Amino acid sequence: MSKKQIYKPKPISGFPEWLPEIRIVEQQWFDHIRRVFEAYGFCSLETPSVEELDVLRAKGEVDKEIYVLERLHADPNEKDEARLALHFDQTVPLARYVAQNFNDLVFPFKRYQIQRVWRGERPQAGRFREFYQCDIDVINVDHLPMHFDAEMPAIIWEILSALPGMENENIQLRLSNRKILIGLLDEWGLKNKTEEILRVVDKIEKIGADNVYKQLKEIDCETIEDTITKLASIRATNAKDLKSQIESMNDNVLNPTYLEGLEELEFTLQNLEHLPPGAVVADLSIVRGLDYYTGTVYETVFTEDPTYGSICSGGRYDDLAGSYINKNLPGVGISIGFSRLFDKLYKSGKFEAARKSPTDVLVTLLNEDDREIANKTARALRQNGHNVEVYHMPRNLKKQLVYAEKKGIPYVWMLPYEDKGHEVKDMTNKTQSSATPESWAPESEQKNADAA
Amino acid sequence: MSKKQIYKPKPISGFPEWLPEIRIVEQQWFDHIRRVFEAYGFCSLETPSVEELDVLRAKGEVDKEIYVLERLHADPNEKDEARLALHFDQTVPLARYVAQNFNDLVFPFKRYQIQRVWRGERPQAGRFREFYQCDIDVINVDHLPMHFDAEMPAIIWEILSALPGMENENIQLRLSNRKILIGLLDEWGLKNKTEEILRVVDKIEKIGADNVYKQLKEIDCETIEDTITKLASIRATNAKDLKSQIESMNDNVLNPTYLEGLEELEFTLQNLEHLPPGAVVADLSIVRGLDYYTGTVYETVFTEDPTYGSICSGGRYDDLAGSYINKNLPGVGISIGFSRLFDKLYKSGKFEAARKSPTDVLVTLLNEDDREIANKTARALRQNGHNVEVYHMPRNLKKQLVYAEKKGIPYVWMLPYEDKGHEVKDMTNKTQSSATPESWAPESEQKNADAA
Repeated sequence: MSKKQIYKPKPISGFPEWLPEIRIVEQQWFDHIRRVFEAYGFCSLETPSVEELDVLRAKGEVDKEIYVLERLHADPNEKDEARLALHFDQTVPLARYVAQNFNDLVFPFKRYQIQRVWRGERPQAGRFREFYQCDIDVINVDHLPMHFDAEMPAIIWEILSALPGMENENIQLRLSNRKILIGLLDEWGLKNKTEEILRVVDKIEKIGADNVYKQLKEIDCETIEDTITKLASIRATNAKDLKSQIESMNDNVLNPTYLEGLEELEFTLQNLEHLPPGAVVADLSIVRGLDYYTGTVYETVFTEDPTYGSICSGGRYDDLAGSYINKNLPGVGISIGFSRLFDKLYKSGKFEAARKSPTDVLVTLLNEDDREIANKTARALRQNGHNVEVYHMPRNLKKQLVYAEKKGIPYVWMLPYEDKGHEVKDMTNKTQSSATPESWAPESEQKNADAA
Repeated sequence: MSKKQIYKPKPISGFPEWLPEIRIVEQQWFDHIRRVFEAYGFCSLETPSVEELDVLRAKGEVDKEIYVLERLHADPNEKDEARLALHFDQTVPLARYVAQNFNDLVFPFKRYQIQRVWRGERPQAGRFREFYQCDIDVINVDHLPMHFDAEMPAIIWEILSALPGMENENIQLRLSNRKILIGLLDEWGLKNKTEEILRVVDKIEKIGADNVYKQLKEIDCETIEDTITKLASIRATNAKDLKSQIESMNDNVLNPTYLEGLEELEFTLQNLEHLPPGAVVADLSIVRGLDYYTGTVYETVFTEDPTYGSICSGGRYDDLAGSYINKNLPGVGISIGFSRLFDKLYKSGKFEAARKSPTDVLVTLLNEDDREIANKTARALRQNGHNVEVYHMPRNLKKQLVYAEKKGIPYVWMLPYEDKGHEVKDMTNKTQSSATPESWAPESEQKNADAA
């Protein structure tokens, strides 16, 4: 080989990439998530990776860091076109999509979206700059029934509890309704301090109830810091419990926003009572202070790893696409931070790597004359849904078995030889038995068929 | 509603996006392609959307237009990090990936990759700037058996002939081997004009044999313009035919490159003889002059629409990752230009839009008291693999039927009412019959089960 100039590549910080045996598990995760989303009637949607920069900023300057695209060979003299930027979430693209295709969609519009999003941050350890999000949202015109708010946690539970590697994780869906606190503050004449107070309450998990109490006191709401702190400490696993806890604190509050929030939260809890005990809890400290939610809010945590933060979060917003269309479009949605979760579970050894290849059967090839029958055998097996490789050149059997072993291929096929017919070697049990290409199935599948 | 400032969004030229009923078909295409790739033992791979600009350019300045990323809020004072750019194909990322993970991969390394790629072109009609490619490649160390060159067209045929909307399209896989022409030119003492001559031959489909003849004459290869033009006109559907056509023209050529190319092409054709007549043809005008192929080359065309160009193309290269690692890594691959193909078939009405929702069954809700049994019914149906929505609020039945109709939901479930039990309405036949949530299946599935 002649001497070459080598440009040695290295991983790019924040842009995850997997070996094939991990990628297979990632694909299983995606398949599972998609199956559950569709089981609840959500349709698939994909939007371009880019939006016009002005679309991304239509709601005002965003706190997310944005990657803008520049054409490397752009002609400086050409007419300006709109600046394009990679989307930093899937909510802004959804809003734009719904506005743009309003007349072609059937409402309530239920869509899921599994795509990459980008955050143009400085490279730093543990922070992803490109990652997958799995979102569901429901959008309706003018009024969106609470049915959907109650459906989101059920879907998320069904997904998270069955992901490979999540089987033994203790997770909890925490939900609340911002109307409860907003209504109470209104009742107490503190409407103008709502935002400030919500931000303090939001920190209760991080800084503790005592510090929240102190900070509330500083905001000059002397009369109620006690009540709010107590309220934010409420945890209830069912509607009845929630109601009694809140009512024991706030007698005769008649503020309509407060009552509405309470009723909505109760309805949501009621509709989640089929889930295992502890799966869902009303947690009145959840306010998601920095987001634009107006009612239901969700967070999901590892109960044994509070430092991780929220696995998936979301909530209800009054008006999704108001920046792009003159319609009132309330929505509710939730988003799984896929790549970060997958990365955590992989790196903490919660799932095993899969095999290095999807191949079920390796058809061996001992001499060139057998090539035609090898190809024919492979085609017959593929017809029945098996993934099959023909070994790529005539070679001694041992080398071919090593290849199968290395790639984790579970079955090796032997073509007819002298007085023997077709045979299959089970690489796990090291057993070998006769087989017919047109009807062979792995033993596990045979058992399933017999049982049916 | 208060008056709002509206930023009306419009589609971005070159960035395709679909309505849900078309997106479902797109997803069926992806599922089918993935199934076939895996049936031949290719593992799934995804790489980041970006590479370092220097990696993309490691082989020298590329003719593809590139999008570079800029962080909108980049601090001008911060230290320079490597410039990142969106990948314009999946071959460069594969080469980088193989070099980087060389010790963790099992060779021959067979991977498929279904991702978006970007071309930073000026917006212009019919040109995509973001699109999906579906690639397979096999990489090996030092020597790559011809087995894989023969496998590619079989895989592509299996994919293209079964995509929804492709059933009635006449397509043809055209292949050749560049060694044949390269060897002949060497034999004739024209080695130094190889590139120039290949480029002319490449144009035969576009400008016709007469013009190729003229242009070859101009390149001052007077003695052989006749032979080359004739050679480039050879079409053969099987190995024997190919051999006799070439041999009738070139008696006793002993150039080893020529003979190797001929043998390789014959081997490939031989291994494709199970395909329908006319599916594959050796076409010696195919040289793919602008690419770096060194042996087998592929193109795939609509025989009735030559203006479309190639649906998918590829070939063999001697050394994939030589810019990134000091190993000799020959490869062979083929790439389906997915989005352009999908767009063509959709816009020419070759496939129908799917329904607007994946929901199989809509469980109706006539009054609030039924909510619990509605949810329970939906869960039982989902357990059996059906996609199910509960109608989102109590409402008169007619409205719920209209919703099902609009979303194309094929079955509507009626909960027990007075002396009636569960019933299902088939929205296609307009028939209604009693059913059990735990055991119901659509009639078509029942028939399949009976037949099995």
